[in-house]
Amino acid sequence: MKAIVSVQQVEASVPDLSDNTADLDRLLQALGSTAAGELPLSVPYLCMTAVAREFRNAGFKGYALLNNLEKSCAVVGFSAEKPDCIAAMALDLGTTHLEASLLNLQNGEKLATADLENAQIRFGADILSRIHHATATRRQQKNPEPDFQDGGLTELQKSIITCINGLAETLSEKAGIRACEIRALSVSGNTTMTHLLLGVDPFTLCREPYIPLFNRAIGITARQLNLVIHPVAPLFIMPSIGSYFGGDLISGILASGMARSEKTRMLIDVGTNAEVVLGNSEWLIACAGAAGPALEGGVARMGMRAGAGAIEYVSIDPETFALEYRTIGDVAPVGLCGSGLIDLVASLYLAQLIDIRGKFRNPAKETDPERRKFMNKHLQLRDGDFCFVITATDANATTEDVVLEQIDLDAMIRSKAAMYAILRTLVNQVGIEFEELEEITVAGAFGRHINPERAITLGMLPDLPLSSYRPIGNSSLQGAELVLLDEEARDECEKIVSSITYLELNVNQEFMIRFSGARFIPHTDPSLFPSVPVVTRLEG
Amino acid sequence: MKAIVSVQQVEASVPDLSDNTADLDRLLQALGSTAAGELPLSVPYLCMTAVAREFRNAGFKGYALLNNLEKSCAVVGFSAEKPDCIAAMALDLGTTHLEASLLNLQNGEKLATADLENAQIRFGADILSRIHHATATRRQQKNPEPDFQDGGLTELQKSIITCINGLAETLSEKAGIRACEIRALSVSGNTTMTHLLLGVDPFTLCREPYIPLFNRAIGITARQLNLVIHPVAPLFIMPSIGSYFGGDLISGILASGMARSEKTRMLIDVGTNAEVVLGNSEWLIACAGAAGPALEGGVARMGMRAGAGAIEYVSIDPETFALEYRTIGDVAPVGLCGSGLIDLVASLYLAQLIDIRGKFRNPAKETDPERRKFMNKHLQLRDGDFCFVITATDANATTEDVVLEQIDLDAMIRSKAAMYAILRTLVNQVGIEFEELEEITVAGAFGRHINPERAITLGMLPDLPLSSYRPIGNSSLQGAELVLLDEEARDECEKIVSSITYLELNVNQEFMIRFSGARFIPHTDPSLFPSVPVVTRLEG
Repeated sequence: MKAIVSVQQVEASVPDLSDNTADLDRLLQALGSTAAGELPLSVPYLCMTAVAREFRNAGFKGYALLNNLEKSCAVVGFSAEKPDCIAAMALDLGTTHLEASLLNLQNGEKLATADLENAQIRFGADILSRIHHATATRRQQKNPEPDFQDGGLTELQKSIITCINGLAETLSEKAGIRACEIRALSVSGNTTMTHLLLGVDPFTLCREPYIPLFNRAIGITARQLNLVIHPVAPLFIMPSIGSYFGGDLISGILASGMARSEKTRMLIDVGTNAEVVLGNSEWLIACAGAAGPALEGGVARMGMRAGAGAIEYVSIDPETFALEYRTIGDVAPVGLCGSGLIDLVASLYLAQLIDIRGKFRNPAKETDPERRKFMNKHLQLRDGDFCFVITATDANATTEDVVLEQIDLDAMIRSKAAMYAILRTLVNQVGIEFEELEEITVAGAFGRHINPERAITLGMLPDLPLSSYRPIGNSSLQGAELVLLDEEARDECEKIVSSITYLELNVNQEFMIRFSGARFIPHTDPSLFPSVPVVTRLEG
Repeated sequence: MKAIVSVQQVEASVPDLSDNTADLDRLLQALGSTAAGELPLSVPYLCMTAVAREFRNAGFKGYALLNNLEKSCAVVGFSAEKPDCIAAMALDLGTTHLEASLLNLQNGEKLATADLENAQIRFGADILSRIHHATATRRQQKNPEPDFQDGGLTELQKSIITCINGLAETLSEKAGIRACEIRALSVSGNTTMTHLLLGVDPFTLCREPYIPLFNRAIGITARQLNLVIHPVAPLFIMPSIGSYFGGDLISGILASGMARSEKTRMLIDVGTNAEVVLGNSEWLIACAGAAGPALEGGVARMGMRAGAGAIEYVSIDPETFALEYRTIGDVAPVGLCGSGLIDLVASLYLAQLIDIRGKFRNPAKETDPERRKFMNKHLQLRDGDFCFVITATDANATTEDVVLEQIDLDAMIRSKAAMYAILRTLVNQVGIEFEELEEITVAGAFGRHINPERAITLGMLPDLPLSSYRPIGNSSLQGAELVLLDEEARDECEKIVSSITYLELNVNQEFMIRFSGARFIPHTDPSLFPSVPVVTRLEG
């Protein structure tokens, strides 16, 4: 359990005329192999004077602060007294949102947390538009000079560095320290975000054959990125595997513990893409697909991220048609987040307001008077299509109602179909059944808020006992925290990278067939979902 | 013969959908152990985009540029064509003077040379006054903060960096390249100069027990020192052994080849101190003493460095008393450099114008009419002491004559006595005779201009056949050149550092006795100098 920055007690002999070893040589000799093992041990240029001065002032004994790097060990500080706190920052570098925490590496305590919108959004809401912004200038030049710095890329890098610095300031203020006392930073982000953070050309990431410029970036210190944390603070950037398989997912695998489990597990992380990993301590197989947008609030017109005012829970009683909902923060509803959307669509299905294709039923054709009454109240025709009005304008904080339109519903059905098809294709790939899984770990905001029962109703997740599902929250951030605290976690990242197989779905025929079969609620083959009530109405 | 920056041909497979290895991983894999052996291989942050872009533009094959560092190997460039030239700069970082050369690491060719006065002189002419300047601010503060930057130290560092940048610009201009194309820098300097270059506190260097803050400084790149050469150009700083035993002398040992010689040799380097090393490939013993100033032009009133207008050769015919001299650059004489001083004093002795204690004889007591005539012309009484006027004012470029005063002559005698005592003490320490030495290598301007025969006459150097003496010029610069070109030379530095023993003369009784015995010309015991004519006059 060696943290990325650790303390090593040391006592050296005091120099005299018969032993004029240089101060830093004396320190390094006294630290010797206890500190670094077989790794080379040195004092970085920026720390030479400070380390030597503290070592001397402390009477050539005390506590050395060590950066435990991948292939070397660096002495970056010295103090007479054992430090109580070594602060380090973990960062989930999301495309839209940044979450960070500040840990005390001496005891693992969480000192503070903070989050922030990704300021790069003003250059483009999604990955593709940011890559475009980063490389637009570049593409105008035929033979850019090796030293040529892309204006757009630099803008994006500066923007994200400013965000991270802001988070570092917030965290350190909360913890009562200075930002320059933060001694390490771990970053867990998708491959594009990591490229942009380092100001590295993302041009090839989104073009066939989708090649990252790098997957690993080692030996980077805070000063090189103009971060406000300690200048020699090491950056641990979670390695990635490919353009569509980033360090955030490596973090997820790490945080889920699946790569240390003998029994096979599955990890589902829904962001812009749905990313799914299947495996155990012996092998890992992963794939990603565009199942996410409708669930993340990016597509539905009233969709939104899980934040204040988002409807996160909806229920419609199939007998009494009583409609209930709850918003995050218990404030007036503003929109629907992913879990609310799933709840709503599952409720609409169970209450027979939509058919198995996910199409709104015509109130005029309804025979049940109670249902017809409810439909008349909540289903409205807009531009020739029905939509479902969850809230009336008067109870609404926005100027509009919170409404689910057919187009959003269709996107939702495609997303859930994609999700199920991905999961099914993946387990089939290795020849096992869902029932053989020890656990399905559900990561992210999706996992935190979703009601697996409702997702099963829709046929989005396999029909397993609810106890099979374990939400773990922001696994990207958790992975980043683990690598700060534990050398074994840092080593495990390498193990994960080297043992994982990536299944490409874009060219996968089986996936396309399974996707078509999954575009009904719960599925073309209801026997796959025995726990879901059979609601067979299908109207023209 | 692996240069500090080298080129490695590489050809990688072209990426496709079935092989989406990241560009830089692809390059590192293709380079593999051919490039780095067992050492870790990586791409530094600053080079990631440029290296990847060039690698891709070149069709994933071509020539990688590698920094061959102490404990790792870094890919710092890529080109489709094999580069003809990799420029690297070697620097002799002297206290008063900087000499530099630009080499092509691809073929060892010397592209340019340049030199410059050390601009730190305005903060103090010698090491001690610069250490004082660097630490004056610091000593006023009782408990300086770890991050506290000393004003004086920063001034000194900036000053020397400006000098080095100036030399880099001059060298690159001469060679027809840009300064940022210089890919490495080796620095050979004394311990204080190296501390000041890195902006590292020199406070303890001149205080008992005389401890350097560091002897080795690895992993430093040009960008960290604000140098104008390529940002990731590695600095190879010659290691030092102690406060008074710097990297310049390690360079000298390296350049002399003595640490590779089976037979025992001696190296004499006269700068501010006389530094002497004795040894062979098995062992090395070194010492330093204040024998230098009079020989370097720092003490004699008319003394000067070997430069234009310096009298570098003097002869007085002991029979005809014909006086001849030659100046560097064949211009009007301005002063006396070390070799001129030695020539002059030896000539004065052989012409019996001074006695064996080095005191001017009184013309009034001279019986030989020719000698008396010459003495009357050239010996003048000033403030009660005789002095020797080499030139008449009319032939002189300065407003004064070039004159040797008794006080300078006394300093010269002390210097020559110290030098011989050092050499004698050293050989005696290991129980050998001067005659057993394969060679006496004489480094520096001293070695380049000195006439060993005259130095023997004075009893400064041992009375050996002139063929025993080999002048090698600026060995500090030569050592710096060697480490750029050859990995074995870099390894040899470490071997030298670990095999050398330092003999402290300040507390050495034998040295003090030998010093007293050597304060006559040639020596109290003339049998030690059989080749020197016996001139026995001694007057009151």
